[in-house]
Amino acid sequence: MPIYTPPIRDLQFVLHDVLALSTSGLPGHEELDREFTEAILDAAGKLSSEVLAPLNRIGDQQGCRLENGVVRTPDGFKQAFDAVREGGWTALDCDPEYGGQGMPYVMGVATGEMFVSANLAFNMYQGLTHGAYSAIHAHGTEEQKRTYLPKIVSCEWTGTMNLTEPHAGTDLGILRTKAEPQDDGSYSITGQKIFISSGDHDMSDNVIHLVLAKVPGGGEGTKGISLFIVPKFLVNEDGSLGDRNGVTVGALEHKMGIHGNATCVMNYDGAKGFLLGEMHKGMRAMFTMMNEARIGVGLQGYAGAVPAYQNALAYAKDRLQGRSVSGARNGTGVADPLIVHPDIRRSLMDQKSFLEGARALSLWGAHLIDRSRLADDADAEGLISLMTPVIKGFLTDKGFETTVLAQQIFGGHGYVEEWGMSQFVRDARITMIYEGANGVQALDLVGRKLAQDGGKHVMAFFEMIKSFCKQHGDDEAVAADFIAPLKVASKDLQTAAMFFMERGMKNPDDALSGSYDFMHLFGHVTLAFMWARMAVAAQEALSSGTDDADFYRTKLATGRYYMKRQLPMTATHLARIQTGAEPVMELEPEAF
Amino acid sequence: MPIYTPPIRDLQFVLHDVLALSTSGLPGHEELDREFTEAILDAAGKLSSEVLAPLNRIGDQQGCRLENGVVRTPDGFKQAFDAVREGGWTALDCDPEYGGQGMPYVMGVATGEMFVSANLAFNMYQGLTHGAYSAIHAHGTEEQKRTYLPKIVSCEWTGTMNLTEPHAGTDLGILRTKAEPQDDGSYSITGQKIFISSGDHDMSDNVIHLVLAKVPGGGEGTKGISLFIVPKFLVNEDGSLGDRNGVTVGALEHKMGIHGNATCVMNYDGAKGFLLGEMHKGMRAMFTMMNEARIGVGLQGYAGAVPAYQNALAYAKDRLQGRSVSGARNGTGVADPLIVHPDIRRSLMDQKSFLEGARALSLWGAHLIDRSRLADDADAEGLISLMTPVIKGFLTDKGFETTVLAQQIFGGHGYVEEWGMSQFVRDARITMIYEGANGVQALDLVGRKLAQDGGKHVMAFFEMIKSFCKQHGDDEAVAADFIAPLKVASKDLQTAAMFFMERGMKNPDDALSGSYDFMHLFGHVTLAFMWARMAVAAQEALSSGTDDADFYRTKLATGRYYMKRQLPMTATHLARIQTGAEPVMELEPEAF
Repeated sequence: MPIYTPPIRDLQFVLHDVLALSTSGLPGHEELDREFTEAILDAAGKLSSEVLAPLNRIGDQQGCRLENGVVRTPDGFKQAFDAVREGGWTALDCDPEYGGQGMPYVMGVATGEMFVSANLAFNMYQGLTHGAYSAIHAHGTEEQKRTYLPKIVSCEWTGTMNLTEPHAGTDLGILRTKAEPQDDGSYSITGQKIFISSGDHDMSDNVIHLVLAKVPGGGEGTKGISLFIVPKFLVNEDGSLGDRNGVTVGALEHKMGIHGNATCVMNYDGAKGFLLGEMHKGMRAMFTMMNEARIGVGLQGYAGAVPAYQNALAYAKDRLQGRSVSGARNGTGVADPLIVHPDIRRSLMDQKSFLEGARALSLWGAHLIDRSRLADDADAEGLISLMTPVIKGFLTDKGFETTVLAQQIFGGHGYVEEWGMSQFVRDARITMIYEGANGVQALDLVGRKLAQDGGKHVMAFFEMIKSFCKQHGDDEAVAADFIAPLKVASKDLQTAAMFFMERGMKNPDDALSGSYDFMHLFGHVTLAFMWARMAVAAQEALSSGTDDADFYRTKLATGRYYMKRQLPMTATHLARIQTGAEPVMELEPEAF
Repeated sequence: MPIYTPPIRDLQFVLHDVLALSTSGLPGHEELDREFTEAILDAAGKLSSEVLAPLNRIGDQQGCRLENGVVRTPDGFKQAFDAVREGGWTALDCDPEYGGQGMPYVMGVATGEMFVSANLAFNMYQGLTHGAYSAIHAHGTEEQKRTYLPKIVSCEWTGTMNLTEPHAGTDLGILRTKAEPQDDGSYSITGQKIFISSGDHDMSDNVIHLVLAKVPGGGEGTKGISLFIVPKFLVNEDGSLGDRNGVTVGALEHKMGIHGNATCVMNYDGAKGFLLGEMHKGMRAMFTMMNEARIGVGLQGYAGAVPAYQNALAYAKDRLQGRSVSGARNGTGVADPLIVHPDIRRSLMDQKSFLEGARALSLWGAHLIDRSRLADDADAEGLISLMTPVIKGFLTDKGFETTVLAQQIFGGHGYVEEWGMSQFVRDARITMIYEGANGVQALDLVGRKLAQDGGKHVMAFFEMIKSFCKQHGDDEAVAADFIAPLKVASKDLQTAAMFFMERGMKNPDDALSGSYDFMHLFGHVTLAFMWARMAVAAQEALSSGTDDADFYRTKLATGRYYMKRQLPMTATHLARIQTGAEPVMELEPEAF
């Protein structure tokens, strides 16, 4: 069975050495010092490695079953879900008014990384519920909040997002699900939704569906869309469960991976729904959920690859095969361990340097959200809005690549299911697709976020890098290895942004043909920035004397690898972007 | 069900416009003109699309079953195998003395592409048999050839390669299977082999296993290894089948993909084996089979991605989602087809430009093998030896990437199994692993092939590119778009090779840390060379007047895309290589 070791030390390093959590100006959270967060992370890590990880392969093998209209989850899932709930983990960063523990979001992400690493498919039941919590918390009436939030916070009831229909994926404007106003103020919802994660299951008493539908007479396209709360069981005035609502599971999808999660076709046949937020402003309300979900999927992208890397590393140290080209390292054994071979090391360093950079980016992103929510930091809000598609698209693409690299180290053993490496790859693949396929993230970044508020946020991003480089440019310990390459990469990004501005005005295709490369270019620059910040932090720890010097030296070496061997990709992305639309759009569709 | 359209026109283009097959100096094969090869390709294409492709998903869903020691293949496989056999396809490029049709190998590859595209797992039964044919043909005694080859050529008996053991993959020197000499001149084989493709099945009368084993008293490591023929059923003197031999299927592996192929654990318990080739020279004999298998796996790498691309293209033209940013293209529909979107086009062009370049490389490689075999062309032999790891490693890595790109175009529909896109990805994944994982290919290229015969072959490769560039450098129609970028990329490759020569002598790790990047750099330069040759051929056709001008113009546009948008990767690979070993090897294993 695959191993999983919670990366507590690495999480602590980012939270405190890099983000300086307890002194970073999150009002009411000054208590979040090292000891405090370590206790939380230890407990979440223990639950992850001891309860959730052992169920990961069982979930893959058994999958979910639809029996007489009810979805059955794999053996052990219900007990594990109870354990997560009882530990208070579902309530960690929720509003205390509704039973939450009131922690900042960054702690939800730090613990969430471990839950995802241990069992991605399982954690989705909770993840989507958290999305429903956020949407109702932001847009619900007082009554809706009182009715639904306490049970959602405790995950006694779980949540779903219902967007996609058979003919309408990214293009929600053409969806057909209808909402007819009823005399009692509710709506009658009719239509079919597909690909509904956690759509139904046997681990909670109720499922609260958030459903996009059109009220007759609304505008064309997305303007006519509203968002509705459609509970599986209607809720009585006293909070008890009432009638079964007119929503049923049509089928379970057969998927490449995440078999432990029930991906459902949901049929709404005159189901009773309640408007959430304003009429015809459903997209806005849904985006509260979606933006959070995108950050969450970015987290899945790298977190899902963490155990893949850990297992590849263990295998590379254990498996004896061939001899080091520079002399035997294990003379008494039949062969040397795989890790002596340079190309194995290259693969492990690619994985390690990406994952640690991704962890920093993910936690920094969560911290920006906390800054915007708790400290009304508008700059932080702008920055995270800009970077959401980068976090989602880049971290999931590279996360998937990382699982493939890890699987490759096992050779043929990686291809047979027994070792569990195939599952990491198959599970990771979905993260590039759902919550907006990565091409849509790239479009969001270049077509919308770049120019948002007059380009203010991307300028702020460049300014931040510039000022960081200025601050540390004379620091010999990091100048050559970190600051110099960060400057080069950042310049590539600026050149690309400028190219879009100049050419994209005349011909939008010139910008959009380079959108995917731009997303990756942005991702590399951001990870380089993370590594530079981590290097500064590691250097500070070393300078001020630490009894954990090996940890910090390893951190610096890993960062140098990223700067030297990953960051040069920015030049290729820029070259691709600068070709403009011509090579991409030259052929007419008929010529293909 | 996924579609598959045999790419006859593209195959013909490479065979005749680019390779000038009938006038290329293959003795005895001057009859291979356009009409002749078209008839062959049409027939193979028809079999592929009508018989093999419809079984692809069935094979994936049913897989193989082990029943009372006998492997059962999926429904329809046996009838299809009979059809392949009856069509004479298994004998196409085999020696007429043993029932073969005596076609050149390049025709085996051209038809093989379609068989693989249609059903990768199914085609492996024949593919491995062909490898056994080649090994026995090259190293067998007259009696062995007479006994085995006619039945192998007709695939009445199929073949396998038995190398891997549980503890010995790449490192065959440590294998434990024993061969004890018997009084009758045969050997008693005992040991366990794993990951044996087509190890057993119900589609042939006999299975001829080629098995690596150690005769006691031989040298250490690979020097003590010999190769043995171990038939499932012993063959009587009159050619009829005799006793069941002591070889059994221990288990079937559960794999990520290629479910239609029986991947077996084979147990040898005192099985009767016959030495093939010289004692203790088993590795040499096995490499006859392995080199062919590596070219064959390179073929699988891109051929498996061809239908993935075709289905993605069809979906992109059919699926209506969103509007073109430069104005609606399908005003009367609810939305425009996906193909109007620049990022979808970027993905399709990445796929198309790789696949067509890969097809040319694969056929050129096969043609080099024909030149070396039929025309005793030593330069061709040296060149294909150099390029075998590039063909295997680069085409399978990029082929897998291509299936992932194709799957992505389907969004969520790509992740559910019904559409078949997941299978293309899962099946393609094995090609990066078997017949020498791609890291081993990179090691073979940099550690062995580069310096082979004093570096003569790589110098010949550079000379060939140089002379091609000189020949066409003044041709305005191709100079700027094709020759100029080819020169730049080729220079990157030479710089990398020089770096290895200078640094690798002192510290082999400096070369091996860049081996994987070098393999990809080499692959890009080779594909650019292929595109330049295709561009020249297309331009010639256009200049000399053709009624198929659209085809040739599309070819030129596709090639330009490759040169502009894929080839810039060479700079990044070079930058990674030039870092040397330091960032890769800096951390001690304990520091990970």
